[in-house]
Amino acid sequence: MVQAYILIQTEVGKSSNVAEVISQITGVVQAEDVTGPYDVIVRAEAETVDDLGKLVVAQIQKVEGITRTLTCPVVHL
Amino acid sequence: MVQAYILIQTEVGKSSNVAEVISQITGVVQAEDVTGPYDVIVRAEAETVDDLGKLVVAQIQKVEGITRTLTCPVVHL
Amino acid sequence: MVQAYILIQTEVGKSSNVAEVISQITGVVQAEDVTGPYDVIVRAEAETVDDLGKLVVAQIQKVEGITRTLTCPVVHL
Amino acid sequence: MVQAYILIQTEVGKSSNVAEVISQITGVVQAEDVTGPYDVIVRAEAETVDDLGKLVVAQIQKVEGITRTLTCPVVHL
Amino acid sequence: MVQAYILIQTEVGKSSNVAEVISQITGVVQAEDVTGPYDVIVRAEAETVDDLGKLVVAQIQKVEGITRTLTCPVVHL
Amino acid sequence: MVQAYILIQTEVGKSSNVAEVISQITGVVQAEDVTGPYDVIVRAEAETVDDLGKLVVAQIQKVEGITRTLTCPVVHL
Amino acid sequence: MVQAYILIQTEVGKSSNVAEVISQITGVVQAEDVTGPYDVIVRAEAETVDDLGKLVVAQIQKVEGITRTLTCPVVHL
Amino acid sequence: MVQAYILIQTEVGKSSNVAEVISQITGVVQAEDVTGPYDVIVRAEAETVDDLGKLVVAQIQKVEGITRTLTCPVVHL
Repeated sequence: MVQAYILIQTEVGKSSNVAEVISQITGVVQAEDVTGPYDVIVRAEAETVDDLGKLVVAQIQKVEGITRTLTCPVVHL
Repeated sequence: MVQAYILIQTEVGKSSNVAEVISQITGVVQAEDVTGPYDVIVRAEAETVDDLGKLVVAQIQKVEGITRTLTCPVVHL
Repeated sequence: MVQAYILIQTEVGKSSNVAEVISQITGVVQAEDVTGPYDVIVRAEAETVDDLGKLVVAQIQKVEGITRTLTCPVVHL
Repeated sequence: MVQAYILIQTEVGKSSNVAEVISQITGVVQAEDVTGPYDVIVRAEAETVDDLGKLVVAQIQKVEGITRTLTCPVVHL
Repeated sequence: MVQAYILIQTEVGKSSNVAEVISQITGVVQAEDVTGPYDVIVRAEAETVDDLGKLVVAQIQKVEGITRTLTCPVVHL
Repeated sequence: MVQAYILIQTEVGKSSNVAEVISQITGVVQAEDVTGPYDVIVRAEAETVDDLGKLVVAQIQKVEGITRTLTCPVVHL
Repeated sequence: MVQAYILIQTEVGKSSNVAEVISQITGVVQAEDVTGPYDVIVRAEAETVDDLGKLVVAQIQKVEGITRTLTCPVVHL
Repeated sequence: MVQAYILIQTEVGKSSNVAEVISQITGVVQAEDVTGPYDVIVRAEAETVDDLGKLVVAQIQKVEGITRTLTCPVVHL
């Protein structure tokens, strides 16, 4: 199992809606609005890095109003 | 009361107008054009962090010509 | 109550230890190692923005091996 | 007269002291701690761009604990 | 002969297609999807720096869905 | 007299044309295509910081294909 | 198997030596000096994301002269 | 012949001296102090990309007080 934080930038004025829509996607544990260089921070999980990549590209990035996503996989050192 | 600086990037050629329009918004103390990685720097205040977030998303980001805002809340350490 | 994500960069080779030490601090909910532009992502909470600022400056930034912290307060829009 | 915002990054744990010391420098109008990618935001003024550069390099950057300064001159368009 | 890595950001949801199309271009050795601040990393080669610049501007940047490219020429020190 | 370097990012595929058009603008000394995080680097000069700001906003940013400009005034320390 | 590009910044004047030392580490496929915002680009592989994290933190970041590493796992979409 | 701009960040308080020392190096055409995210902007030239890399690593980065250099080769498209 791979967990990750996904740091998201949205179009201006869209962050609230983006967080709401993302929080419904399977594999997403939590999605919250934040202030600072990112607008929404998501916690998600998937079976493999490739599945995580697909979750981000095929589902999260499809949400209207997202301009950039930055995936940070959690590592257990 | 929460104060914050809001560092704004605008579409090319829009910074002057953006600063003018923002300076009329309630809660905005000052809005000025600058050169460098940001185009406009705003000082604003609100009752709470959530109110500040709403001010930014619901009012400032509605101004035409803004591409990114970066909110930096003032902290009293 | 104010929640925040704190995105942390550490000196090379220190991320694992930094996450462990931070996770013991009162007010810190979770601290995990990640890959990407940040090395550790922390979730913390405090009574006010000022308390959050003090938690970051007076306690988290005291942890040996941290080079930069970026606080992203959660906002409820 | 040239005004500018100076966005400052400090060593971890030093922001509060940096803001205090900077606020005493002649030409500095205000110096406040913030959260986000910068730690202290300063407003300063000088006669010319060269004087502003000297104020930053010869006085503000001399304050112990500063790692980067980013000067954003105000422009009147 | 000049080799280079080209770090590419794409529009959301376009990275997979961008990598596929780029991998067909003459001069491109490899093009792969990655996670993090970049979406696709390309390895390319050309006769001179100017030819490399032309390859990037005239061919790679023509691929639909690319928003930024960052060319990092390999140097033999 | 104020001199400045202006670091410019363009839409993909537009850098060559942007450099050509900018080099015709009064106050622009030189405009060249580069590789790396910026696409065009311009050297310009104006009477004052405000005039420089006007040159950038009213003329350079009007050139079609520019997405960001970053003005770096030269200082004589 | 997980592949990744690791974008490395080094202390000034150390890039050549860093690339040489890293290229000897098991799991590293290639390590080259580049110009631009990064100094060395490495291609590495490991069994899992956690193993990749350990390779980076326990071995690559131990190389003298490295200041930041940015791991970009390859994803097969 | 390869020309390049080299964007330099220095330790706080060192920019003026860095510019002076660099301007003496063979291959350096001009070195000036600037304000903004960079502290010194250099124009240099060399026979090849590899020679340019050597000029930067073996000579410019040896100057005391430099923390980062970013080389942007000029391209003729």
